[in-house]
Amino acid sequence: MIEVIAFDGDDTLWHSEQLFVDTQAAFRELLAPYVDLDDATLDARLVEVETRNLPTFGYGVKAFTLSLLETAIEVTDGAIPGQALRSILELGKVLLDHPVQLLDGVPEAIDALTDRYRVMVVTKGDLLHQESKVARSGLAELFWQVEIVSEKDEASYRRLLERWRIDPATFVMVGNSVRSDVLPVLAIGGRAVHVPYHVTWVLEHAEPDPERHDFPVLGSMAELPDCIATLDSSTDA
Amino acid sequence: MIEVIAFDGDDTLWHSEQLFVDTQAAFRELLAPYVDLDDATLDARLVEVETRNLPTFGYGVKAFTLSLLETAIEVTDGAIPGQALRSILELGKVLLDHPVQLLDGVPEAIDALTDRYRVMVVTKGDLLHQESKVARSGLAELFWQVEIVSEKDEASYRRLLERWRIDPATFVMVGNSVRSDVLPVLAIGGRAVHVPYHVTWVLEHAEPDPERHDFPVLGSMAELPDCIATLDSSTDA
Repeated sequence: MIEVIAFDGDDTLWHSEQLFVDTQAAFRELLAPYVDLDDATLDARLVEVETRNLPTFGYGVKAFTLSLLETAIEVTDGAIPGQALRSILELGKVLLDHPVQLLDGVPEAIDALTDRYRVMVVTKGDLLHQESKVARSGLAELFWQVEIVSEKDEASYRRLLERWRIDPATFVMVGNSVRSDVLPVLAIGGRAVHVPYHVTWVLEHAEPDPERHDFPVLGSMAELPDCIATLDSSTDA
Repeated sequence: MIEVIAFDGDDTLWHSEQLFVDTQAAFRELLAPYVDLDDATLDARLVEVETRNLPTFGYGVKAFTLSLLETAIEVTDGAIPGQALRSILELGKVLLDHPVQLLDGVPEAIDALTDRYRVMVVTKGDLLHQESKVARSGLAELFWQVEIVSEKDEASYRRLLERWRIDPATFVMVGNSVRSDVLPVLAIGGRAVHVPYHVTWVLEHAEPDPERHDFPVLGSMAELPDCIATLDSSTDA
């Protein structure tokens, strides 16, 4: 029996990665006068800085903005002027204040599930930013709990389920990231539904093993209620 | 009857504000070659930027670092070189990675209270940083719950107490900030104990009204167990 359905936030409930992609395009344009690097090289340098900073900064837009600034200084050997760095800082603020745009079918899917299940959000990133996105989503009232975590791995899911006394066998995670929403949940005995977003951050890439990992992959949130019904009836047997 | 005792983190369990004060001194030194402002004026400009950014950035070291960078660019009219900004970024990383230094009497006080009460942490700031400080404090095992919140006001305490089904009359908050740890808790019917730290961030300043606000003020954490015993026996009557 399924009891709790948890949704990831970014790129599952609302658009996010596309905004980062657009911000990186603006970042490359801002740097263009000061450094001669092709797009792929500059993107790779940014990923290098983000990866190095992850243990200290964690996820979220503030971490991203700090890594943009660091990359800009690094690739220009400090030649980038203060006002261009100020513009990069503003890109970060625009991201943080950006309106929340729900993905297609999200309110309907959640609405269809709340009658029968406890529905929660499990998301990672900046605490204030994630809270503010939940609040601005218009969906806050529908959630039993909203959990913002610093990492989505086996240990953090285990802690979360213990905290709310949820039996993993009754838990389904719905999200766009195989690495963060699917594999660790399967590993602790829960189930997961993958709803891919059209772009994936390079640090979220994962290659599931089709021999070992069995989970539904949906084309959109509109397919979720039927998928959950099927999962639930298969566990009734 | 007291059931739950909650501790603030920064400047209550471990040193924090002194590290920010030291960082601001290093910041002023980094800026000295590029701008002619006295310390008080520069500090005031930083507070101005922090206050303006608070609704978007929230609390914590990443927000502080972004505001340091913004202030540096602003007060030098963009004349500060990239390498000096890089050094400011490094100041932020040093703060995030700084070892946790417990305040005097903290482990003993908590240890003395866990037999009889549920003890929790309620702290604000960067999610990952606060979690990491709890982990590195060596005290994690003693806490019933650790709650990291984006703001400590009446609404957030009310939500927190509802979440864990705590009757405000059974709840005591212990912290160094009258604004964040004392006044909002008193306002929702809980009790609070003030343990001042030797410096207070200007955005945490508050003036309690001695006519309306009644709470114990301790010289150190060593006095806490006796204080709690007195509070608890006064409510037995």
